[in-house]
Amino acid sequence: MSRDVWAEAIGSFFLFCTVIGSGIMADRLAGGNTAVALLGNTAATGAMLYVLITMLGPLSGAHFNPAVTMVFRLRGDLSTGTALRLVAGQLAGGILGVWAAHFMFAEPILQLSTKVRTGTGQWAGEFIATFGLVFVILGTIRHRPQSVPASVALYIVAAYWFTSSTSFANPAITLARALSDTFAGIAPADVPAFIAAQAAGALAALVAGSLIFAHEDPAP
Amino acid sequence: MSRDVWAEAIGSFFLFCTVIGSGIMADRLAGGNTAVALLGNTAATGAMLYVLITMLGPLSGAHFNPAVTMVFRLRGDLSTGTALRLVAGQLAGGILGVWAAHFMFAEPILQLSTKVRTGTGQWAGEFIATFGLVFVILGTIRHRPQSVPASVALYIVAAYWFTSSTSFANPAITLARALSDTFAGIAPADVPAFIAAQAAGALAALVAGSLIFAHEDPAP
Amino acid sequence: MSRDVWAEAIGSFFLFCTVIGSGIMADRLAGGNTAVALLGNTAATGAMLYVLITMLGPLSGAHFNPAVTMVFRLRGDLSTGTALRLVAGQLAGGILGVWAAHFMFAEPILQLSTKVRTGTGQWAGEFIATFGLVFVILGTIRHRPQSVPASVALYIVAAYWFTSSTSFANPAITLARALSDTFAGIAPADVPAFIAAQAAGALAALVAGSLIFAHEDPAP
Amino acid sequence: MSRDVWAEAIGSFFLFCTVIGSGIMADRLAGGNTAVALLGNTAATGAMLYVLITMLGPLSGAHFNPAVTMVFRLRGDLSTGTALRLVAGQLAGGILGVWAAHFMFAEPILQLSTKVRTGTGQWAGEFIATFGLVFVILGTIRHRPQSVPASVALYIVAAYWFTSSTSFANPAITLARALSDTFAGIAPADVPAFIAAQAAGALAALVAGSLIFAHEDPAP
Repeated sequence: MSRDVWAEAIGSFFLFCTVIGSGIMADRLAGGNTAVALLGNTAATGAMLYVLITMLGPLSGAHFNPAVTMVFRLRGDLSTGTALRLVAGQLAGGILGVWAAHFMFAEPILQLSTKVRTGTGQWAGEFIATFGLVFVILGTIRHRPQSVPASVALYIVAAYWFTSSTSFANPAITLARALSDTFAGIAPADVPAFIAAQAAGALAALVAGSLIFAHEDPAP
Repeated sequence: MSRDVWAEAIGSFFLFCTVIGSGIMADRLAGGNTAVALLGNTAATGAMLYVLITMLGPLSGAHFNPAVTMVFRLRGDLSTGTALRLVAGQLAGGILGVWAAHFMFAEPILQLSTKVRTGTGQWAGEFIATFGLVFVILGTIRHRPQSVPASVALYIVAAYWFTSSTSFANPAITLARALSDTFAGIAPADVPAFIAAQAAGALAALVAGSLIFAHEDPAP
Repeated sequence: MSRDVWAEAIGSFFLFCTVIGSGIMADRLAGGNTAVALLGNTAATGAMLYVLITMLGPLSGAHFNPAVTMVFRLRGDLSTGTALRLVAGQLAGGILGVWAAHFMFAEPILQLSTKVRTGTGQWAGEFIATFGLVFVILGTIRHRPQSVPASVALYIVAAYWFTSSTSFANPAITLARALSDTFAGIAPADVPAFIAAQAAGALAALVAGSLIFAHEDPAP
Repeated sequence: MSRDVWAEAIGSFFLFCTVIGSGIMADRLAGGNTAVALLGNTAATGAMLYVLITMLGPLSGAHFNPAVTMVFRLRGDLSTGTALRLVAGQLAGGILGVWAAHFMFAEPILQLSTKVRTGTGQWAGEFIATFGLVFVILGTIRHRPQSVPASVALYIVAAYWFTSSTSFANPAITLARALSDTFAGIAPADVPAFIAAQAAGALAALVAGSLIFAHEDPAP
């Protein structure tokens, strides 16, 4: 297993463990005040994203997200084989991260979510959330590469709050959240529509980003 | 439509969608604790501002705000035609962003706010908020351009809390918020006075900034 | 009036207006949950400090604090006349900022605080808070000047929570807060002991900082 | 006493004082809403970590943590004598910081915690928390040294929420927290298992980090 796959696996382990674990912690402590729980969940996720992208970006690009890997494959930055290996690392590491969160919080390891997340509004949320995420990556990666970690992390901080679906924006995390019947879970039956909306949003952002950022002059 | 107008439209879409969407999310989850709701609204707005200014600054200046565009027109940095096109992009993109937030949260698309925001105190709030915003932009843009995204974002974070009006500081967002009868809305009748106070604050900051920052020595 | 005095006056106006204004806003919205109110007050103050130091540091050093000005005078970086003019700007601008906050929030302009803040524990809090503030400034200003705005802002964020007095750490803001009978106020009778503790902390930090940072090797 | 030991002692004083002091403040103000209290505790700790690492990193490496000092000793970056002196500074300064927090908040200076923190889940939490902390340090220190302060601070922000133990991740702070019967305390009987899990996590990260980051290409 090469270093870029390890980087995706370790990063996804910590990212997904943070999403699930901080959701459990926040939910247990908040005593029913869901806005306070979401503040804790948001702070933890945004902070971890900044750290992981800073640390692992030089090794693998720090995708942790098959929609992002797909976009870089379609741009020709990755071979199909590499893309598939990165996605395998994301899924394997990420699911282990979910299970590690369950173990830490003395929850049953194997769970299936029962949280219904469906409807046109939430699918629109996932389309917009993933469009924005990919657009931000394409818009910062060339001319302001040192701003990528903060930009992606803060975009997700905003998206947890401005989208009706709390911005999964990531097919691997959508699958992994189906394995957790906790604050951040999603019922398995609701997963396919979320992933379809994410894929559509990513592709739309690839087109839009190519048009907007292609001929950009260098930043000062 | 040129790339700078697209940048203003897309940025205003995401900014206004974030202001309205995170307001709805925060209000729904907070169970009546308005301070917690404002914390969520603040975090989302500040985070998104940093991202959008970082990403779109090199394309259009990342104004998303007719008061800011007016100031750069008066300084001679833009032609009147360009300024008008940028403002058109801000309004069109921003209003679409409000409607997208309504759609995501299963609210009626077309709304008019009933939230009364008026009185000398709040007008003073808008004057001070917009004065500060323009002053910060003029004070950082020349010698510390890499600090503009964080400075503007954090200024708005503070201004959501220290002004009695929660700092609209933007005529386009004031108009757009009139189209949303949610947490962040403003009744249409209260819009003109807000915009007048914002314009006055921006003009005062243009004068003050020219006096204070004109002969500044280069930063180390 | 020279530009450095204007910078201190304008910066102190916005800083003190933020401390008082965000305290009023947070207190009104929090419905008695003081921890939530302090979170809002903290976020606003820290955010504004970053902005003001970034923007005005090149003009005046961005002290907004007579204890800091005194330390730079004792180090020989300022003449006595300049130091006195900066402090005059801090007091004038800062008190106007308090009154502006009162006006925005429709409070009586002229007030005297009735909030008792006294006792050995709180005086120790002010000593430690001001020691830390001056120590951080002396420790970052030479070798990591670009980190000064974030370091000072985040130090105050921490100090609002880890000191029993919520870290005034500033004689000018202590005087100005005595003029506000709101969340952030302090009864006039309690002001002298706070200022004495702050002066002692600042002087101790000047000695400690000279010993620790004097022969520092250049940062990488 | 050399400057690096002073730096570790002063940094640990402020760090541990912040952990304990902000815990007391948050707990007192939050009125039983533990999630809000943890938000305040998290913001203060993360903010202070950024400041202390920025300021004291050039003097001593800014460990404030015997597990980190052990890792650098095992890598051959420090002599055994230096490592022991740094750890002595961490313990002495840190325990004084705990007592200073007690004094500021008018608590009895000498306390022993009665807070039970035990069980496989929390030990797994400490293993994962310390693994991640050391892995982040090893992953950022060579190629992105200017990102170390923000990365370590934000990692701890996340770890306060995603681990079941709220991430002590530091043998010195574990010992020091045993001396405080407040929000952040830990019963003395539970300390040895926490420290064992932390040491195991640090050693595992040293191995993993050597494999993953050893041959890394320079970051762009």
